[in-house]
Amino acid sequence: MPDHNQKAPHESVQESLRRVVELLHKHELVESLVNKQDMPRHDLVQQLVHKQNLTELQNTLDALHPADVAYILEALPLDQRLIVWELVRADRDGDILLEVSDAVRESLIATMDTAELRAAAEHLDTDEIADLAPDLPREVIEDLFKSLDKEEQAQLQSALSYPEDTVGALMDFDMVSIRSDMTLEEVLGHLRTLGELPSHTDKLFVVDRNAKLRGVLPLKRLLLHNPDVQVASLMADDPVVFNAEDKAGDAASAFERYDLVTAPVVDARNRLVGRMTVDVVMDFIRDEAEGDVLALAGLREEEDMFASVWKSMQNRWTWLAINLVTAFIASRVIGVFEGSIEKVVALAALMPIVAGIGGNSGNQTITMIVRGLALGQIHPSSMRKLFIKEIGVSLLNGLIWGSILGLLAYALYRNAALGAVMTGAMVLNLLLAATMGVFIPLVMHKFGRDPAVGSSVLITAVTDSGGFFIFLGLATIFLL
Amino acid sequence: MPDHNQKAPHESVQESLRRVVELLHKHELVESLVNKQDMPRHDLVQQLVHKQNLTELQNTLDALHPADVAYILEALPLDQRLIVWELVRADRDGDILLEVSDAVRESLIATMDTAELRAAAEHLDTDEIADLAPDLPREVIEDLFKSLDKEEQAQLQSALSYPEDTVGALMDFDMVSIRSDMTLEEVLGHLRTLGELPSHTDKLFVVDRNAKLRGVLPLKRLLLHNPDVQVASLMADDPVVFNAEDKAGDAASAFERYDLVTAPVVDARNRLVGRMTVDVVMDFIRDEAEGDVLALAGLREEEDMFASVWKSMQNRWTWLAINLVTAFIASRVIGVFEGSIEKVVALAALMPIVAGIGGNSGNQTITMIVRGLALGQIHPSSMRKLFIKEIGVSLLNGLIWGSILGLLAYALYRNAALGAVMTGAMVLNLLLAATMGVFIPLVMHKFGRDPAVGSSVLITAVTDSGGFFIFLGLATIFLL
Repeated sequence: MPDHNQKAPHESVQESLRRVVELLHKHELVESLVNKQDMPRHDLVQQLVHKQNLTELQNTLDALHPADVAYILEALPLDQRLIVWELVRADRDGDILLEVSDAVRESLIATMDTAELRAAAEHLDTDEIADLAPDLPREVIEDLFKSLDKEEQAQLQSALSYPEDTVGALMDFDMVSIRSDMTLEEVLGHLRTLGELPSHTDKLFVVDRNAKLRGVLPLKRLLLHNPDVQVASLMADDPVVFNAEDKAGDAASAFERYDLVTAPVVDARNRLVGRMTVDVVMDFIRDEAEGDVLALAGLREEEDMFASVWKSMQNRWTWLAINLVTAFIASRVIGVFEGSIEKVVALAALMPIVAGIGGNSGNQTITMIVRGLALGQIHPSSMRKLFIKEIGVSLLNGLIWGSILGLLAYALYRNAALGAVMTGAMVLNLLLAATMGVFIPLVMHKFGRDPAVGSSVLITAVTDSGGFFIFLGLATIFLL
Repeated sequence: MPDHNQKAPHESVQESLRRVVELLHKHELVESLVNKQDMPRHDLVQQLVHKQNLTELQNTLDALHPADVAYILEALPLDQRLIVWELVRADRDGDILLEVSDAVRESLIATMDTAELRAAAEHLDTDEIADLAPDLPREVIEDLFKSLDKEEQAQLQSALSYPEDTVGALMDFDMVSIRSDMTLEEVLGHLRTLGELPSHTDKLFVVDRNAKLRGVLPLKRLLLHNPDVQVASLMADDPVVFNAEDKAGDAASAFERYDLVTAPVVDARNRLVGRMTVDVVMDFIRDEAEGDVLALAGLREEEDMFASVWKSMQNRWTWLAINLVTAFIASRVIGVFEGSIEKVVALAALMPIVAGIGGNSGNQTITMIVRGLALGQIHPSSMRKLFIKEIGVSLLNGLIWGSILGLLAYALYRNAALGAVMTGAMVLNLLLAATMGVFIPLVMHKFGRDPAVGSSVLITAVTDSGGFFIFLGLATIFLL
């Protein structure tokens, strides 16, 4: 794995983006001039200018870190993106494909033929090939597999065998392992033979002859101690270790909690099979967090900002369809009370307030509970306390805001009973919101579903239909 | 700074939580027995059992990493939390306070007197004291300040002088600096004199006699090269460097992009003033991401799950108040059309659908745009393309879902014109949602506000009032 740590961002990536866009515009301008003036495309001067822009663009790109090229590709509309992608040096394609978002990767891979894809992937480590694998055509993977040596083939198979979101799917194979009976001097000699240490190496993994993990030797200790000392006497024999089948989320929490840089990964029989590094963990955390925000808005996955209208539709329609159904149900609840609305038309104007505030309050409760569940901090014995607290908050909110709204309704329609119904409906709907806000995520969690996905739709559905029903129901009883 | 890397989670933190809760329950059981049976509290046997439980609890806590104790404190209701907090060894208080969430820290500090707080903070580094400072009473900080040596006093002042969310506020002072004319052998000797390397050290910082940063020496190179070599010939002279006044978010992106573990921080005159480490960056990323999710639900800040009803109210009321205002405006829009609703009462039942779907669609657009802005990937030249795409998606969605709803409305009310109005209103409201979904975040960004906060309320306000206006307006024109 190349070590990019020392590559300097001589300018911020936003500046690079700006420069690339500028060069692209110059390029497009020349192109359009050529086309407009109907000049022969072979006109020498034009061709030179054209080429000059592209060469400058190419030089700019070559000087950038792969992650920065990825950033720029994501920020460009499809046509410009493909011009830039063409200009990227072929041997950097693989590294860049690893860095771009899934959606953008798809758009880039779609333009590459089998030979190009194979060439791009050839420069990658086996764990990186495994990361790209879902997006590569089967024949490319088969070709790549054949080109690997036995050990690498085993690594690739192993990396592909673990489900997404397990430690096994995130680990790499760049571990340096040593024996406990070596002296520090021998270890140093061994490292010098290797010539280069994998990126992020902060500790070496101590294994026995059966590849079983015995401990770790932090580089620090290697540096600070006498070369004659044996590894066994210096190594930490109870480091944080992950099993390849552990959940990636749990491993990420452990990295955060224990401030890890790298950690060994073992199989069920405690044999060292790989390592986790903090950079992968950081990407994982970022992806998870973004997934949550996207899920809240009902986007199925990260969307290429410049995806086609059709692709975007596919990403978004599920949620809209679900909402249509819940909105339709709420609409039918109102339909039941059309007779009441005909008599007191003010009800139509006031009912969305009750439903809306209920939805907001419910979403606040649900956000708290989902967070507690995600952290594993909600314990059966604390559930009752949580529920009582949320009910208390809702009751207080309902009384305060419900009274204000009741007074407003009275002021607008000069109808005291209407004001009282408004207040009562607000209190009841906020209590409903709190109850469901606690129970929906708990029930989803109980049945092994991720409460972050869909909780928000459900609570809004309940508080909409519930709010209309409570308000119009109370009105029908007390006003007519 | 203590090195916790090697502390093993012999069991998962959830298991520890479960055990602590169990012990607490035993303890509470004994307490309640004592109280119920009106036995003298000094009864020897009872006292022994009581003490035994607490001792076991204390031993459990002592064996845990500070981050794990913090996790458990956050998961416990206030009364149990304070029992546990009492049992924590005083010299660990500081480390644990650093790890808990702001809200929980407040609840813990509230129970501590000046002497306890001073004792807790004494064990901390200056950058850590600075992190706690906002929650500490002024006199404690003054006492602490006096107890520091000159260099530490300067560090504390420097750390406190940088605004939150700058690199200066996140950096620590645990940097090891060397001179470029040293040989590797001399460097190793220097490190051995220090005895211990700060956590996360993956590179040493090379400075000149004026403390100006000249480069960095990765530990790897120190390990792999001949001890006679001079630092100058091995150091990387253009590493990723941050300025203490840089935005923390930009630094975090750089850490992610360039896979950094540590990076030097300099002042305006390129003098080394501190360093950033990946663990702090990871916490920052997590906090930012959580802040976004909380902001979406209208929670001002991270809330202690077991906060008092009153505290929770304070955290949540702003958003509810804003929503009340926007809901009230929407209600007045409906009020304008009460005459139309009286004549065609079906309008009351159908109007929330138009408003609701508009809100959802608008939130999808806004989530995309906010994300692009946060990443700095939205460039003026790409805005037009983005806008056209969003309009396209909305038009298509409006036609598809609008037609379905139009048919449903027709089927329910046997009124073809009503169906047509429904379809038309859906298309127009989704177009409004797309337009505002693009422009609201762009305008907020332009005026230097964080578009993640409040965009969602604004779009919902627009699509609610707009949806009611469009639907009822079209109905008034075409149906009456």
